[in-house]
Amino acid sequence: MAKPFAESSVEPSAKPLALTLGEPAGIGPDITIAAWLRRRELNLPAFYLLGDKRTIARRAKALGAGISIAEVSAHEAAAAFADALPVVATGETATAEPGKPDASSAPAALASIRQAVADVRDGRAGAVVTNPIAKSVLYRAGFRHPGHTEFLAELAAQDGRAPQPVMMLWSPRLAVVPVTIHVSLREALSQLTTDLIVSTVRIVATELKSRFGIARPRIAISGLNPHAGEDGSLGHEELTIIAPALKALRNDGIEARGPLPADTMFHEAARNTYDCAVCMYHDQALIPIKTVAFDDAVNVTLGLPFIRTSPDHGTAFDIAGSGKASPASLIAALQLASRMAATTS
Amino acid sequence: MAKPFAESSVEPSAKPLALTLGEPAGIGPDITIAAWLRRRELNLPAFYLLGDKRTIARRAKALGAGISIAEVSAHEAAAAFADALPVVATGETATAEPGKPDASSAPAALASIRQAVADVRDGRAGAVVTNPIAKSVLYRAGFRHPGHTEFLAELAAQDGRAPQPVMMLWSPRLAVVPVTIHVSLREALSQLTTDLIVSTVRIVATELKSRFGIARPRIAISGLNPHAGEDGSLGHEELTIIAPALKALRNDGIEARGPLPADTMFHEAARNTYDCAVCMYHDQALIPIKTVAFDDAVNVTLGLPFIRTSPDHGTAFDIAGSGKASPASLIAALQLASRMAATTS
Repeated sequence: MAKPFAESSVEPSAKPLALTLGEPAGIGPDITIAAWLRRRELNLPAFYLLGDKRTIARRAKALGAGISIAEVSAHEAAAAFADALPVVATGETATAEPGKPDASSAPAALASIRQAVADVRDGRAGAVVTNPIAKSVLYRAGFRHPGHTEFLAELAAQDGRAPQPVMMLWSPRLAVVPVTIHVSLREALSQLTTDLIVSTVRIVATELKSRFGIARPRIAISGLNPHAGEDGSLGHEELTIIAPALKALRNDGIEARGPLPADTMFHEAARNTYDCAVCMYHDQALIPIKTVAFDDAVNVTLGLPFIRTSPDHGTAFDIAGSGKASPASLIAALQLASRMAATTS
Repeated sequence: MAKPFAESSVEPSAKPLALTLGEPAGIGPDITIAAWLRRRELNLPAFYLLGDKRTIARRAKALGAGISIAEVSAHEAAAAFADALPVVATGETATAEPGKPDASSAPAALASIRQAVADVRDGRAGAVVTNPIAKSVLYRAGFRHPGHTEFLAELAAQDGRAPQPVMMLWSPRLAVVPVTIHVSLREALSQLTTDLIVSTVRIVATELKSRFGIARPRIAISGLNPHAGEDGSLGHEELTIIAPALKALRNDGIEARGPLPADTMFHEAARNTYDCAVCMYHDQALIPIKTVAFDDAVNVTLGLPFIRTSPDHGTAFDIAGSGKASPASLIAALQLASRMAATTS
């Protein structure tokens, strides 16, 4: 396998990871506790949760998990991690029951994200790992960003300019980046431009080097249409939009191949020929990775001035507090963030 | 696994399968010979090639394969199959060298297809299995059909009306049907209608019963947009086009579920909840099946008055005659056609 970190033995980061609370009524607390319980077995990197001790203690009780929780400062978190789940207080207290977000949910979730970004930017944490939020809950509380990622980009703004965040889905078997993301397929066709492809792939190439330690990243770029348009007979975007982007990228010295027929890009032999696949729209990227890595795919945001990973699932209100939530994706997100931090520093 | 025939022990059809020559300069002859050589090891159903003995003998020599070839009638083919590769003459002789189609290619390919359809319709063959053709070669010779499948539908016309052919890609792990097929993504958005979804799924449901022996087929129907449109916030087609189709299908008594987010339909646990996934466009269907079944997916044409399967690859001119072509998909196509024929009869 040739995927970044697939068989890596990169040493974990020395700094602890700042883990956000996410929506407190969701499964964030459940999977945080479950991940911490497996810290020795899996040799997990040290992390601390930004939240309030009482929320976690209550959830641990509901789950029947007898754990120690240590309220600490970020500086003390790494030392505390072996014996207790470190919690760094944000000042907000969440009161919501599992599955039932309340008025305390949004302030608690947002304070946690803000503090995580401050910690990583000020050097107290090696990376930000985010638990899932519930956008509808935040919207009702006046949140005005399209989503988690855009909020992080806003917090990362310098001189009032937010960076372009790029969503990567990573797994040991496949890494993908959709160029257009959470828009209708019709809107994706409108948004797709040569400039957008070029700026996205530049960020991918830069961070595969700087954060994944790949000296010469190999990037596979999909076509938009079936069979990558078959020389224009099944659509023109490959010729008018994607090929010019490839030319510009190659002029930059980036090893980019394409436009490739999307249907033959993702079987095992094909996957081994590149480090990351850049796709034109959401399902073209998400179908293959969720087919081959449903449980352990990690959402990584590239383009920010810090490392951010996230489990690739939602708040799962229906199973919060039940013990049914799998920590697999959060564990993968913690491990990946730690390796990226160690590679970057 | 719950896929049709995935663990089937259906007895093979008593009638032989009519295998077309395909483009004689392509890998059709290679994989036909390679499949026949494995007939005992894999207990393959009897088949005969519609072509000319000399073409096959020449290719066998080029491949260094010492095989017996028997020129027979269709009625004699099953008995001959154990000891020789049965060839039924079409009257056309192909002269092309491997990789170099010539003027004899198109007439030989078309005569073989016509004869195969006549054989299956007249009861001499249990099913039609087609080797790959080269559309560009046929076009230069005046062929006026969009492709192989449409030509077969034309040959199957009754009272001048061709049936609606439906393309299924089948593998032991996943079966998929794209509603729109070989058109640009933009054109697929235009072609997608409630009527097209309904007529396609009706054919799928009917043939899963009649030809695959599934008493109550479970059909999963994808959305068009990311997350199946998220209640209209990421596109309206789920609400205006797909949901009405599902309603009509359920009124017909068809067990159809959806519209489902396409990215979470294709991991193993999800695949086990349905018999066939119906998708809105080419890559949505082809990406997952080629990711999980790159070597052994079979192309099945539903909606015809006979059974037709085909390997899911092209003529591969670059490796014709070299011995490098894998017969895996043709073998899977022969096995599937035989089981479908036995189930239908």
